[in-house]
Amino acid sequence: MKDCIFCKIVKKEIPSNIVYENDKVMAFLDANPTNPGHTLVVPKKHFPSLLETDDNAVKELFVAVKRVANAVKEAVGAQGINIGVNNDRAAGQIIFHTHVHVIPRFTGDGLQMWPQGKYQKGQAENIKKEITKHLK
Amino acid sequence: MKDCIFCKIVKKEIPSNIVYENDKVMAFLDANPTNPGHTLVVPKKHFPSLLETDDNAVKELFVAVKRVANAVKEAVGAQGINIGVNNDRAAGQIIFHTHVHVIPRFTGDGLQMWPQGKYQKGQAENIKKEITKHLK
Repeated sequence: MKDCIFCKIVKKEIPSNIVYENDKVMAFLDANPTNPGHTLVVPKKHFPSLLETDDNAVKELFVAVKRVANAVKEAVGAQGINIGVNNDRAAGQIIFHTHVHVIPRFTGDGLQMWPQGKYQKGQAENIKKEITKHLK
Repeated sequence: MKDCIFCKIVKKEIPSNIVYENDKVMAFLDANPTNPGHTLVVPKKHFPSLLETDDNAVKELFVAVKRVANAVKEAVGAQGINIGVNNDRAAGQIIFHTHVHVIPRFTGDGLQMWPQGKYQKGQAENIKKEITKHLK
């Protein structure tokens, strides 16, 4: 994709702090880290989001994510790792080239998970039916 | 694992709203949703976290995650999907059986991504070196 910043990083037309690369995947430091060591893992091939990424590319991507996540954890001495993928604008996606955030976490770093609530009676069963319908 | 709640859900010893199942993976509604339709996707085999999950299980898991995420998005009419994996207590992991959160997002739902900052001069390069070392 001509105007995609991550395609340009993959082609090394834009410099980045690359930490890992194989023939299908590249990983580089996020220039705006949530915590130091925050890394992005991307398929070299352009897909707009994970939801539209080929199954084979998904497999290659997440094997690399696991490997990179373990390395990031050791490298920065983190106590945990969050892995996140934002798909579409409503979910916070800004660059429309599939990318996986690998975010090192430190006890007491002050970051909070999203709040979770409860279903009303019958609501979960209805949603289950809808999702199941879309998986047939 | 004898005392693992997700192993019990996989074996159907504990009821859950299962939305998808194949021989390697199960997906069910999170009982405490961030948004309605919040789904967990788990490998049927027990691994304590994604960082310790076999590569083949990682591949099966994320192909299912993509499929489930697309179905959840359609089913609840979401505008986006966040995918998240919390590894270790410092990253918000509570159940120590690998699980992937699939969270539907709606424009204006009020959820905020984590804040991101900047590296100090030279800091990114040092961290890059450390991570690269751990990937050799």
